[in-house]
Amino acid sequence: MAKVTTSIITIGDELLIGQTIDTNSAWMAQQLNAMGIWVHRRVAIGDRKEDILETMAKEAAVSDIVLITGGLGPTADDITKPTLCEYFQTKLVQHEPTLQWVLHIFESRGLPLLQRNIDQAMVPEACTVIRNERGTAPGMWFEKDGKIYVSMPGVPHEMKGIMESYVLPQLAAHFNTPAVLHHTLITSGMGESFVAERLTAFEAGLPPHIRLAYLPSYSLLKLRLTAFGADKVTTAAELTIYFNEMKLLLEDITVADQDIAIGEVLGRILLEKGKTVGTAESCTGGQIAAWITAVPGSSAYYKGSTITYSNEMKMKLLGVKQETLQTYGAVSEETVKEMLAGALNTLEVDYAIAVSGIMGPDGGTNEKPVGTVWMAVGSRDAMVTVKHHLRYDRERNIQMTAVYAMNELRKLILQ
Amino acid sequence: MAKVTTSIITIGDELLIGQTIDTNSAWMAQQLNAMGIWVHRRVAIGDRKEDILETMAKEAAVSDIVLITGGLGPTADDITKPTLCEYFQTKLVQHEPTLQWVLHIFESRGLPLLQRNIDQAMVPEACTVIRNERGTAPGMWFEKDGKIYVSMPGVPHEMKGIMESYVLPQLAAHFNTPAVLHHTLITSGMGESFVAERLTAFEAGLPPHIRLAYLPSYSLLKLRLTAFGADKVTTAAELTIYFNEMKLLLEDITVADQDIAIGEVLGRILLEKGKTVGTAESCTGGQIAAWITAVPGSSAYYKGSTITYSNEMKMKLLGVKQETLQTYGAVSEETVKEMLAGALNTLEVDYAIAVSGIMGPDGGTNEKPVGTVWMAVGSRDAMVTVKHHLRYDRERNIQMTAVYAMNELRKLILQ
Repeated sequence: MAKVTTSIITIGDELLIGQTIDTNSAWMAQQLNAMGIWVHRRVAIGDRKEDILETMAKEAAVSDIVLITGGLGPTADDITKPTLCEYFQTKLVQHEPTLQWVLHIFESRGLPLLQRNIDQAMVPEACTVIRNERGTAPGMWFEKDGKIYVSMPGVPHEMKGIMESYVLPQLAAHFNTPAVLHHTLITSGMGESFVAERLTAFEAGLPPHIRLAYLPSYSLLKLRLTAFGADKVTTAAELTIYFNEMKLLLEDITVADQDIAIGEVLGRILLEKGKTVGTAESCTGGQIAAWITAVPGSSAYYKGSTITYSNEMKMKLLGVKQETLQTYGAVSEETVKEMLAGALNTLEVDYAIAVSGIMGPDGGTNEKPVGTVWMAVGSRDAMVTVKHHLRYDRERNIQMTAVYAMNELRKLILQ
Repeated sequence: MAKVTTSIITIGDELLIGQTIDTNSAWMAQQLNAMGIWVHRRVAIGDRKEDILETMAKEAAVSDIVLITGGLGPTADDITKPTLCEYFQTKLVQHEPTLQWVLHIFESRGLPLLQRNIDQAMVPEACTVIRNERGTAPGMWFEKDGKIYVSMPGVPHEMKGIMESYVLPQLAAHFNTPAVLHHTLITSGMGESFVAERLTAFEAGLPPHIRLAYLPSYSLLKLRLTAFGADKVTTAAELTIYFNEMKLLLEDITVADQDIAIGEVLGRILLEKGKTVGTAESCTGGQIAAWITAVPGSSAYYKGSTITYSNEMKMKLLGVKQETLQTYGAVSEETVKEMLAGALNTLEVDYAIAVSGIMGPDGGTNEKPVGTVWMAVGSRDAMVTVKHHLRYDRERNIQMTAVYAMNELRKLILQ
């Protein structure tokens, strides 16, 4: 069975000047992979006809499917549709169902209709129009010389709607795809090269159709096994054997045996044990709470947080003693211990996380340089305090602190 | 003056299966653009020799500079260096300063040294080695047939260190680049097509070397003017004239006249007015606080937050009445009003933001479907309440809510 391959083309100057981070491609790749379609290349190009034409031709030469996002909004910098007409040697025609849909949207929102909105119903005659349930710009499906091309708007939730409702089912019907399966183990506390050293024999013993990749992610390390095969059931069974072997080798440093965020790892443990959690955050400014509550259903174990940026709030909301703050400072083991005790009390939870640090770029001293962070995690019965010296920018320091702290609590609960 | 162009190649299977979102390319593009180097294309490919060789040749054919990230870590899935040797017809040799640097890092951390760490000092003989101050894998600068190639590790903060300390200064010295300048206006409260309608005459009057792009971002719309010119001062002056004209046309809907996050927009207003802010968050779970504190120096105006996921915490920390929760529910105008009053009181701040909603995927009812959110923003003297019906996934609903609420407070303060 031949491998079915896709190229993803993203159109838009905003991607080339770095104003927008491309999250569409990652989502599309995940969906395609899950159904056994391999993403061969991802290309981002600007809003220029020549580049679009050239890139479409190049990618169609190496891939079975060419997925295109971007360049379909109602504003004047969009040149994608005329370019598609040139590529497929067709012309723009008005598509009646799309026009009715656009009219319906504007009517129901009580907005006046502009010519540029009506123009959304103009589509290349050669395409199959795909209804965009979440916006006015439709998707367009083309076939040429045995290749499939789909053009979609770049707004993420509109693109996702079109992919889910039409493109993915159609591709599944069109191709007989091989199984591509991934299984990821997340570890902490051991560097990439040391993990690799421990896995040397295991990796050497992998068959050619199973690959291992090392993906550092904040303070964690993800180990991804990927298996290819003709049959999904057989491939999955084989992957499981190798995955379990790897898991056994790394048992002492395993955080999770699937690719989920640390907030979800922690949430599942709390849910299973019927325990609750809260946070007392200073330097992370709500990041830990936001990651805990990013998980659907987190209200079952998450009650609340206090974010205490000022000393006054540390005293008022968490009962940290003025003397402690004066003697040891806000970034100290003593302060995070009192923050933790205060959080357990104030938030009435079984477990809590308390952090205080200096995330930068300013605010450091000789004694406590930027990147110094203290954390305390625990319950009324057990507590751990940890100090870190982080060396990154503000954003990354905050994220690293959040991951470290959540992982410390995970370890403490499982002890 | 010819336009200097770059292609960015990102190597790594994790990008093609969607496990990792590529943030490196956006950062690189921003830096290059600021110095007048145009990013022509961005390509993501897998860890396969043939793809790497072919893509390097293709990109070098259309760009002056080829920047490559990824594939240089200490683990076995890295095939980039041997492939670079093949491309540049050279061989791997040991680079003594890199070896000393690796030895130094491992010694100072008290870690044993593995062969794979020592191998980090093996580099293609044809390259100029660039010290990686933040890791063990060095950057590599190549020149061939008048084109420049730079290979860097994919770990973001390592790549950034190498770019800032060496690559960007070297490129600036090497090329005589044109000025490429951007200026962005952020608006809210008017759809893309209506803004475009209002700007029709303005846009038609733009000279060919100044372009306007529409970039929707959550509930906001960014309007970016880009100018190209031989001379930076002249180009900037000309861009400013057009930007001010556009700003005047959109004065009633302007959020900010530069491309900064809503947290920073709000922070600057608070700083200027010498006022403080706090948040009382339910459904956003700390996201608003996290975005406010993402701004360096935010401790000058941000004191703290309470995140009250449970009804008990809404009552205990914010003084929301049990009767209110029973009669109207947690997601109601009455509840967010009381949350706001409680936040102003508890957090002792001048302004506060209170939100409560149902972010999904579960938890909706017929009366209050998923996506229903109530927000109250204000001070002791003035308050606004707003209800929204959001139609996205949990993550986006949370982010939209945070942007809406922060923008409501911005408007209220400026009234």
